[in-house]
Amino acid sequence: MSNKKPLSIIKIGGNIIDDATELANFLADFSKIDGNKILVHGGGKSATKMAKSIGLVPQMIEGRRITDQPMLDVVVMIYAGEINKNIVAQLQANNTNAMGFSGADGNLIQSTKRNHPTIDYGFVGDVKKINTPLLQTLISNGIVPVFCAITHDKNGQLLNTNADTIASELAIAASEVFEVTLNYCFEKAGVLTDVEDENSVIQQINSELYAQLKKEGAIHSGMIPKLDNCFNSLSKGVQKIRIGHHKMLKDNNAICTSIEL
Amino acid sequence: MSNKKPLSIIKIGGNIIDDATELANFLADFSKIDGNKILVHGGGKSATKMAKSIGLVPQMIEGRRITDQPMLDVVVMIYAGEINKNIVAQLQANNTNAMGFSGADGNLIQSTKRNHPTIDYGFVGDVKKINTPLLQTLISNGIVPVFCAITHDKNGQLLNTNADTIASELAIAASEVFEVTLNYCFEKAGVLTDVEDENSVIQQINSELYAQLKKEGAIHSGMIPKLDNCFNSLSKGVQKIRIGHHKMLKDNNAICTSIEL
Repeated sequence: MSNKKPLSIIKIGGNIIDDATELANFLADFSKIDGNKILVHGGGKSATKMAKSIGLVPQMIEGRRITDQPMLDVVVMIYAGEINKNIVAQLQANNTNAMGFSGADGNLIQSTKRNHPTIDYGFVGDVKKINTPLLQTLISNGIVPVFCAITHDKNGQLLNTNADTIASELAIAASEVFEVTLNYCFEKAGVLTDVEDENSVIQQINSELYAQLKKEGAIHSGMIPKLDNCFNSLSKGVQKIRIGHHKMLKDNNAICTSIEL
Repeated sequence: MSNKKPLSIIKIGGNIIDDATELANFLADFSKIDGNKILVHGGGKSATKMAKSIGLVPQMIEGRRITDQPMLDVVVMIYAGEINKNIVAQLQANNTNAMGFSGADGNLIQSTKRNHPTIDYGFVGDVKKINTPLLQTLISNGIVPVFCAITHDKNGQLLNTNADTIASELAIAASEVFEVTLNYCFEKAGVLTDVEDENSVIQQINSELYAQLKKEGAIHSGMIPKLDNCFNSLSKGVQKIRIGHHKMLKDNNAICTSIEL
């Protein structure tokens, strides 16, 4: 038996953030989760909406969105400003002592500007290092960290960073000192073998079954990098990962996908 | 002799924030200040610029700016997002372990929506309570808090709040546990008896001289609420207040206005 204390890391995306009622319900449920916890949130549609309203045209190269300087300014103000602070204020109203962070705050998440051989992604960061001792200090003081998807390079540059990756990197780093359960909340009940059928949730998946389902083509292409990422996190010390609708957080009997090695 | 540890609180406004070179110089100097410190920053012109670019018309009642919901969204994203996170990232590059906060984060600054008999200021907050124990915990862990001028009411509402007031309320609260020096940095060398003459700095002012200068009309009208606020802070435990150009922070011989009871 591990004598590490449990820590729940929950990642939410646009489907929750873009719907005020859904977000309020989620935050009320999140507040009721016992013990140590961290929230990681993605962006949602408001950054795109803001970018359009100030006349920015999305920069795409080979189908990938590029974060140029004006777009970086927008994501920083929306993710770290509007979304993060509204979530923190609502959690405080639910008596959860939330504190909102970008990776620059307390140097909690340092990243490196992506260096791709053919595509210049602009101001996009790949996570390099988590400040685990400070994270542990905050948590042991009753703080509930709320991370947005912005990091920094420790040379003064903020960087747009994938929220799923932030959640998994936090989970891996925190697993040194906590027994970590990582929860990815999205609009579906879990990983489906048939995207059209909500009843086709794979309730348990391990590396063996994953290899088999990939071979059979039963796992949806967009789900493959997500699951690869999950198995990578598990191999690096994360105890358990769940993917599903956020009702899995309050209802232990809710159907979702549990992932183990 | 007090056995409290010293704490410097520094407030900067738009004149520094709006000028990238000036801001970089200030942040490099700020990083060199020894010991415990807190930075409080105002807004600058970018909130007004953003408001205009998305088509907002400033709401004014009796000459006072009103923070309606769309304007609140703008100040939250600019102050707590763009400005705060860029300052934090630059301080981290200067090896200062900065952490950026609104008042909602960690419930550090709780305020009350202003209730004025004749003017509805909108989402404007007056500071009610500082979470001094948490502030002390953060500082004792080597964190340099960086506050933007946004607070919350603990019921989920973010509120636009005067940065000078945030600085003075933090100074008063922190003076319970620290020996606090509060520094207001602005574009002038100090409080001037002649606004047109930079050489007319009042280098020392106490409550007696202040009463006399007000009587003589030598103190500029806009300076009166600022100085009233200073004397109030001093009467509530703040050790020392200085007003002047930020060069006073690195050069002990720089001319500035020192205020004592």
